[in-house]
Amino acid sequence: VNFSSDNVAGISPEILAALAAANTGTQPSYGEDAISARLERRLADIFEHEVAVFPVATGTAANALALSTLVPPWGVVYCHAEAHIAVDECGAPEFYAAGARVAGIAAPHGKIGVDDLAALLPGGKGVVHHMQPAAISLTQASEAGTVYGVEETAAIAELARRHGLGLHVDGARFANALVHLGCAPADITWRAGVDVLSFGATKNGAAAAEAVIFFDPAKAADFAFRRKRGGHLFSKMRFLSAQLDAYLEDDLWLRNARHANAMATRLAKGLQQIAGVRLRHPVEANELFVEMPDPLIEALFAKGFQFYRWDGPRGNCVRLVTAFNTAAANVDAFLTTARGVNRSE
Amino acid sequence: VNFSSDNVAGISPEILAALAAANTGTQPSYGEDAISARLERRLADIFEHEVAVFPVATGTAANALALSTLVPPWGVVYCHAEAHIAVDECGAPEFYAAGARVAGIAAPHGKIGVDDLAALLPGGKGVVHHMQPAAISLTQASEAGTVYGVEETAAIAELARRHGLGLHVDGARFANALVHLGCAPADITWRAGVDVLSFGATKNGAAAAEAVIFFDPAKAADFAFRRKRGGHLFSKMRFLSAQLDAYLEDDLWLRNARHANAMATRLAKGLQQIAGVRLRHPVEANELFVEMPDPLIEALFAKGFQFYRWDGPRGNCVRLVTAFNTAAANVDAFLTTARGVNRSE
Amino acid sequence: VNFSSDNVAGISPEILAALAAANTGTQPSYGEDAISARLERRLADIFEHEVAVFPVATGTAANALALSTLVPPWGVVYCHAEAHIAVDECGAPEFYAAGARVAGIAAPHGKIGVDDLAALLPGGKGVVHHMQPAAISLTQASEAGTVYGVEETAAIAELARRHGLGLHVDGARFANALVHLGCAPADITWRAGVDVLSFGATKNGAAAAEAVIFFDPAKAADFAFRRKRGGHLFSKMRFLSAQLDAYLEDDLWLRNARHANAMATRLAKGLQQIAGVRLRHPVEANELFVEMPDPLIEALFAKGFQFYRWDGPRGNCVRLVTAFNTAAANVDAFLTTARGVNRSE
Amino acid sequence: VNFSSDNVAGISPEILAALAAANTGTQPSYGEDAISARLERRLADIFEHEVAVFPVATGTAANALALSTLVPPWGVVYCHAEAHIAVDECGAPEFYAAGARVAGIAAPHGKIGVDDLAALLPGGKGVVHHMQPAAISLTQASEAGTVYGVEETAAIAELARRHGLGLHVDGARFANALVHLGCAPADITWRAGVDVLSFGATKNGAAAAEAVIFFDPAKAADFAFRRKRGGHLFSKMRFLSAQLDAYLEDDLWLRNARHANAMATRLAKGLQQIAGVRLRHPVEANELFVEMPDPLIEALFAKGFQFYRWDGPRGNCVRLVTAFNTAAANVDAFLTTARGVNRSE
Repeated sequence: VNFSSDNVAGISPEILAALAAANTGTQPSYGEDAISARLERRLADIFEHEVAVFPVATGTAANALALSTLVPPWGVVYCHAEAHIAVDECGAPEFYAAGARVAGIAAPHGKIGVDDLAALLPGGKGVVHHMQPAAISLTQASEAGTVYGVEETAAIAELARRHGLGLHVDGARFANALVHLGCAPADITWRAGVDVLSFGATKNGAAAAEAVIFFDPAKAADFAFRRKRGGHLFSKMRFLSAQLDAYLEDDLWLRNARHANAMATRLAKGLQQIAGVRLRHPVEANELFVEMPDPLIEALFAKGFQFYRWDGPRGNCVRLVTAFNTAAANVDAFLTTARGVNRSE
Repeated sequence: VNFSSDNVAGISPEILAALAAANTGTQPSYGEDAISARLERRLADIFEHEVAVFPVATGTAANALALSTLVPPWGVVYCHAEAHIAVDECGAPEFYAAGARVAGIAAPHGKIGVDDLAALLPGGKGVVHHMQPAAISLTQASEAGTVYGVEETAAIAELARRHGLGLHVDGARFANALVHLGCAPADITWRAGVDVLSFGATKNGAAAAEAVIFFDPAKAADFAFRRKRGGHLFSKMRFLSAQLDAYLEDDLWLRNARHANAMATRLAKGLQQIAGVRLRHPVEANELFVEMPDPLIEALFAKGFQFYRWDGPRGNCVRLVTAFNTAAANVDAFLTTARGVNRSE
Repeated sequence: VNFSSDNVAGISPEILAALAAANTGTQPSYGEDAISARLERRLADIFEHEVAVFPVATGTAANALALSTLVPPWGVVYCHAEAHIAVDECGAPEFYAAGARVAGIAAPHGKIGVDDLAALLPGGKGVVHHMQPAAISLTQASEAGTVYGVEETAAIAELARRHGLGLHVDGARFANALVHLGCAPADITWRAGVDVLSFGATKNGAAAAEAVIFFDPAKAADFAFRRKRGGHLFSKMRFLSAQLDAYLEDDLWLRNARHANAMATRLAKGLQQIAGVRLRHPVEANELFVEMPDPLIEALFAKGFQFYRWDGPRGNCVRLVTAFNTAAANVDAFLTTARGVNRSE
Repeated sequence: VNFSSDNVAGISPEILAALAAANTGTQPSYGEDAISARLERRLADIFEHEVAVFPVATGTAANALALSTLVPPWGVVYCHAEAHIAVDECGAPEFYAAGARVAGIAAPHGKIGVDDLAALLPGGKGVVHHMQPAAISLTQASEAGTVYGVEETAAIAELARRHGLGLHVDGARFANALVHLGCAPADITWRAGVDVLSFGATKNGAAAAEAVIFFDPAKAADFAFRRKRGGHLFSKMRFLSAQLDAYLEDDLWLRNARHANAMATRLAKGLQQIAGVRLRHPVEANELFVEMPDPLIEALFAKGFQFYRWDGPRGNCVRLVTAFNTAAANVDAFLTTARGVNRSE
């Protein structure tokens, strides 16, 4: 049983079926196909707004390309210290923004707040010696498995506007955040002041598909060139778009996310009842960060459960991630094992 | 009937089936999965040599990443003036190599020769004012549908060695070239002196899969970082590797290429018998460049055949591309139509 | 006697004196000093236009920084095949423009014309696969020692406007060109449609000083950041500005250029009277490209004259460059020697 | 009286004289001149080691170019949070290292220690998701006016070696540090394990001159290309080298630094005797950071003394910088005024 990450899961059956369905006849390449057009319309409907949509295959590509439209080479993008763009993309944002800086801000529970940001701004804006504040990036759901609320997002957006900064959301787990919030997709994006969204699907059931979504298409004017020179324009684009299209059809994205979140909650509830076990962060999406005694961790490993220690090889915090297809039985098996180990200590 | 490109075709059924087959259980992400390991072994067998293999999703990514390991930011890569890296990648090689230069050399039939290169070398090597010669890139099969022979390749490799240049092959249509040559994959790559190969699969039946293959793994030491920061490391890597693995299994890649080439030859033979029609280049792979009277071109368009004019909107040269699944009946329909039009003129 | 280049000469005495004169008391750093302010006013007067002025120390920095404001990373700048930016800056324009391309166009006598450019445009503008035409750069005086006339410049500017391209002038020898033309500085720059000028002083008597001049200050909005991050913002800026200020005072720049041009003309006239000697290009500024028999070249070297062979070590074309302080006696000595050698052959 | 910075001072008379002395006859350009050769020999003597020397005009260029040889585009350079490279170079290191990251570490008195660094290393070395630790940069003297001792430097160098990191020293005020330490230049550089030194002269009496010094010339193999494509190779190099040459002759650099340091010490001693005034950091070079009551600060401004508030417009810490030519009388005037103001409060 593998709780290492939501990317160890495979493809949602509906999405795999869509790949097969797309495999008929010839289609114009590079995004001129019918499925890509349908995808853009679908996203416009879902977000209740005109959008410019650019499918890519990885979240790193989505984030780095999106940020490159907001940040000049001498610009700074502010984010949480543990954000994927700061820690897990091997410098992709710096690469795509030609040397810009990613400034990570330490803050509790994976979320930065208006006060954290306000303390750093204007940050030498206009002073030639300093890199220039250019954008804010929020991770939704966050790296700590928490979710930015509508008002939190709007407050940060308001600050961004006041300082002339762009607002990006890394939505690798956007669906998980959305179903937690229970609001409309528009509420937590453009209505709250978000400029660009990395709309993730891979972690929630696609093989490899994300979409960069601009809510002001004018801001996407040169995105097509950026994507192409990054090597991220697919010739057989229909197979990228088909994944996203199926992801959205019949609310598959929301159903998948609801399941993953429910499994995380089930895991959290069970773990909270075990002595010596403590949740480090609120569980609002599909990730848990759980502090537990070392013998318990080792016992779970010994039973074949897979997951990561989070604070280094000797740390007593582990991360557990559920996915669109995590079986409730596996969650329960984990809990049963954990309870058993604990009792026998 | 669509002869616009080999990328308007879909996925080879065997490859689609492999995606479904790979979709079982969990797998470690980012290339630590079993399918990726099998793929590397398979390629080592096929090339009869130790290899370092890096799957990516697009040919542009493969080329730009491969070249970035051979060329410093102040370096020059020499290629044919019509090479994909020079013309069709929106500056990806320049981007990945941090400002290097792609120097296109005009030469007949899409192929550069030793003499073309020798005339440009040493090109100011060691002189601080000049960008520094660093690599040669050959397109195999070429943009003109022709193929570099073993001896042609070896002679260029020898020149490259003498001048301290790396040798890259853009093998977006490598299989088509290989089956034309009828030699071993090793003969036309490392035995001939090639350092790095962009091994294409997308145009020959994959959904989106290419592999960068180094024949000296030491030269790939930092490739993993380059790929990651380019946003080209897939989390669910198994689905990229599975495409390539199926592509190689039971010689699918060779069978697909032989079919595409055979259809191109069938088209070429038929067209040569039509008065006023002339092949611009030898047809050695799956592309034809055909000069024909404007009324004939227009008549074919009117009948619903799809293809591109190659010399601009009024030029009388067209490109016809066959694919792994081009039906012989469609080739014959094209020829019948062409003959009919011609007769009635 | 050294005709190798105008950069083997030292500093104009007036400019050296200005450095000493500027060396009194303290001055605000980074360009907030009084001399820098005076320089900007002086250039506005001379060019009869509002200007934004940025002193830097090298022509390569001036060109690369100027172009980076006109050309996106996926852009193309068109210039003559022998332009300094194409051949002699080791990729600085590509570096500063984050991977843009410099496309050199072969054309007679160092100058590109409207027809050369028109043949290449629109060059795939708007097509995502192609790097995008973005700017034209003219070298004034050219690498062949020739000068673009007002009408030639205006015609190219008109073409640039029509295709949405910026127009840059590499004026490393701008003064030499200007005195040849005898027009107002405005006539050959903004009135003719030039956007940005690399205004050179080093080759014409400064120690190390050039100015990037924008005729539309709005286009210079981010230039200060570009200059700083390139490491080209001087802390003791007054000593850079003082060179340029003295260069302009009392028409020193024009006097220096007139002298250098006059010496070139004197050399040209003398050489034309020698049998077997031929000027490759019209002599319009301070450079001569002279085809002469190999024994004559060797004899001049043997007599201690310094200059470069231009077509490689065995070529029979030499370049002779005069400077602001070239002595007429040295010119005459060269001619006398050349005549003597020729006679004795 | 101006204590704003050591870069508001002019040129040391000996250096100005050297510019005039260098202005005779012609000299080969781009560093092939006799003065540049002499400079390199002189630095080899002073550092008691073979060196590769590259003059440039600004400290930002020296730092960014030097670091680019130690750090790949996906690399991290560790430095103090207030280091010039982190705060005051508008992203130049990121630019020259093609997207690398500058990681500032907060630590007391402007100096990072072995423990600060050890806590961050290995920092994911070898893990493809993370940017890779590549170099450490120390500022000598530091931004806080303090100096790294020989053993402090050696301990950091030892850590760097163990983790495979390069060690750079930003020596914009290297002379000030050296005379404070009273050791040999070799002791605090290569003997302690430093790979590359940005050897500053501008702040200590040059007009605009720094030297990048490699103690292992093999590591400088491609530096010449980096410098050229950055636009930092001077054509009339003799005037850059002449500044550095005069700077070193007859120990001018040490004499200038001793004077600046002595003036700082004089200022510090005087200030310490004033009630309510406190030195924030030890005064070891030529910078003082002084906490003083707001009315005192305002009174000093009102009397015409120039300096910066250091903690923002309302902060009560000021920075005072002395220079090679700071007059003792001006120091005393400042102290007298300060004492007077304080008394009258």
